[in-house]
Amino acid sequence: MPAMSPEQPVIGFLTDFGLDGAAATCRAVILGICRGAQIVDICHTVRKYAIADGAYILRTALPYFPIGVHLAVVAPGVGTARRPIAIRTGRGDVLVGPDNGLLPVPADALGGVSAARALENRDYWLGSPTSSTFHGRDIFAPVTGNLAAARARFEDLGPSVPVDELVRLPAPAATARPGKLETVVTYVDSFGNLRLAGGELEAATLLGGDGSQAQLAVEFTGGEGNRAAQAAARFGATFGSVPRGESLLFVDSSGDLAFADNQGNAAQRLRVANGDP
Amino acid sequence: MPAMSPEQPVIGFLTDFGLDGAAATCRAVILGICRGAQIVDICHTVRKYAIADGAYILRTALPYFPIGVHLAVVAPGVGTARRPIAIRTGRGDVLVGPDNGLLPVPADALGGVSAARALENRDYWLGSPTSSTFHGRDIFAPVTGNLAAARARFEDLGPSVPVDELVRLPAPAATARPGKLETVVTYVDSFGNLRLAGGELEAATLLGGDGSQAQLAVEFTGGEGNRAAQAAARFGATFGSVPRGESLLFVDSSGDLAFADNQGNAAQRLRVANGDP
Amino acid sequence: MPAMSPEQPVIGFLTDFGLDGAAATCRAVILGICRGAQIVDICHTVRKYAIADGAYILRTALPYFPIGVHLAVVAPGVGTARRPIAIRTGRGDVLVGPDNGLLPVPADALGGVSAARALENRDYWLGSPTSSTFHGRDIFAPVTGNLAAARARFEDLGPSVPVDELVRLPAPAATARPGKLETVVTYVDSFGNLRLAGGELEAATLLGGDGSQAQLAVEFTGGEGNRAAQAAARFGATFGSVPRGESLLFVDSSGDLAFADNQGNAAQRLRVANGDP
Repeated sequence: MPAMSPEQPVIGFLTDFGLDGAAATCRAVILGICRGAQIVDICHTVRKYAIADGAYILRTALPYFPIGVHLAVVAPGVGTARRPIAIRTGRGDVLVGPDNGLLPVPADALGGVSAARALENRDYWLGSPTSSTFHGRDIFAPVTGNLAAARARFEDLGPSVPVDELVRLPAPAATARPGKLETVVTYVDSFGNLRLAGGELEAATLLGGDGSQAQLAVEFTGGEGNRAAQAAARFGATFGSVPRGESLLFVDSSGDLAFADNQGNAAQRLRVANGDP
Repeated sequence: MPAMSPEQPVIGFLTDFGLDGAAATCRAVILGICRGAQIVDICHTVRKYAIADGAYILRTALPYFPIGVHLAVVAPGVGTARRPIAIRTGRGDVLVGPDNGLLPVPADALGGVSAARALENRDYWLGSPTSSTFHGRDIFAPVTGNLAAARARFEDLGPSVPVDELVRLPAPAATARPGKLETVVTYVDSFGNLRLAGGELEAATLLGGDGSQAQLAVEFTGGEGNRAAQAAARFGATFGSVPRGESLLFVDSSGDLAFADNQGNAAQRLRVANGDP
Repeated sequence: MPAMSPEQPVIGFLTDFGLDGAAATCRAVILGICRGAQIVDICHTVRKYAIADGAYILRTALPYFPIGVHLAVVAPGVGTARRPIAIRTGRGDVLVGPDNGLLPVPADALGGVSAARALENRDYWLGSPTSSTFHGRDIFAPVTGNLAAARARFEDLGPSVPVDELVRLPAPAATARPGKLETVVTYVDSFGNLRLAGGELEAATLLGGDGSQAQLAVEFTGGEGNRAAQAAARFGATFGSVPRGESLLFVDSSGDLAFADNQGNAAQRLRVANGDP
């Protein structure tokens, strides 16, 4: 990965703020501090309050970003005890956001969490009186801008937070045996493809010695409602390896197991959805 | 606020054009004239023709932008008598868009309207023959780009328009007395929180001498259908100050009164929506 | 049009990836290679697999972009025989995407297709092992970045592809006679306006010698379901030329015939929609 460029830092930005102005306000605050920043909107339509969805999207996107400062806010507890933090990754990124489980998941994909700070130093907050309800604009965005512009060092942001005290989401798990997979839906993407717990290892177990065209049974539970569903699929490397409309189990572009209907919408057919908040 | 940078001007951009290419075409026109511009998409999913919604979003977002040239189009009357204008604000911004009430509301939050011009000088329009139906691309975007690149001065855009002749939206109003508030829903955000007419002053009246935990009665009318609804709420500074699912009246991050269900969707529950066009 | 600037190239970017992170990942890959790029998101909510919709949007947007490298992916056949290609336009742009009909339509609006290459040179692909399911991130984005940064020449991308072997979409056609038009809906925009096959020529035939206020009969078939509908309209230059709620046939801002209800949603009223995938 290319290293961070102080002149044109690339800042990934994800929220559940929607598309009606709040995320743009944060962008403007960042640009007011760091005019040359290239801010990449990863997603602002994360399902409201769905921390795991946000974490999933960050985990799949950020490894392809230049090393840099990235901002993420999915926040059911604005103004409550979810303290604002910054996390340094093993790769050298800094992730800014709430301490509610959102940031450690992508950090693990960026070399792990190497340090964390509580954002208590108001020198890097927005100059005007701080709203108690819009931390994105008043704390997270200006801290991100100050870091990206190299006006603030990670160590200056506030007191150190022990890494093992960070809030962490429960890790989803999969069980595979030859021909059968029990797993959990970790995310439903916009194509209706189901992203599943498990990866290359489970795929190898599942296939046993039978080659790649065996019929497979998949049993998954999905979303927060934990709805269960069962389906048959073939294992394949590309959508083209099964007929149109048939189901495919594959290792996706992030190394996760995934289930898709070729040119169909598996989530709709199986009535699996990202859970309601 | 930082001053305008001619090399990397930050341009806020809001429309009701949707997400399928029209706004991007305008962006491209601006960048063709002002290559270094940082264009921040504030919102392009403003409810069709809903001038008041667009004005609300601009009013809450633009005060956090660097002083600059900003472009906004919500236009029920394309090709009709809504003349294209530019407004200079007291703070020094220039707002470009139609003379239909959209721009004075945010201008008031940026130091007021200090001058206005009709965009009649075709030197700053797009070179090719001008479509009669896409003013965004053919007039507003190139004027914005020329201003941002300092190729055009405000005074060169066309004849002066008397400030008191600008079209203005009716101002929403609130009436507060201790424990009771009658107000108007000015905007329903993507969380389902209701933004209300009234601010700090009404909040102080409402609370009287009773402190911040009193039960309050709120009566509001919402959207263009003027549906009325009543609700009880507590007053608080943060969502965490009421139990999950209960209602909160608070002064929001823009200084407006707002009504929210903690981790719920107040607009859905009370069936208040931004009105249909 | 301004020429391509290697320091700050403007890159148009269109996909059917949705708004949840995949397009942003591609943006990040491009910026990792070409840090100064101005990437303009034309649309990422193209109806899934709807190549013709994507082609329509590109055709109307790209002529207003600076000459440059542009990236488009609408791909029902990921991992199948739709080979990745780049097309050079008569104007000097390079369009990167799949060989499935998406690119020639906008190329025709940019001076035609002058040359094509298959993207077989892995030197310009992403360094890490290439996923078989995410060509956008692993092939198209890095090729786009390398071209925009002038690290790759068009001729280096891979073997030449004969222009007449490129996959092309069927061209929609219209038949006009005085007072009557039979046509096809090529796109339904976010306002519910119907974009139609036919342009200035058909408009002139349609109007005959009767001037612009004649009543017209329009018969169109729409979307992939080929639903037929008939409607009456007046011909006019602006929405303001017919009363609110009445129908208007006009030559739109791209030179196409279009049908709209003034301040209404013609697509909803006539139940014409972009077809389901």
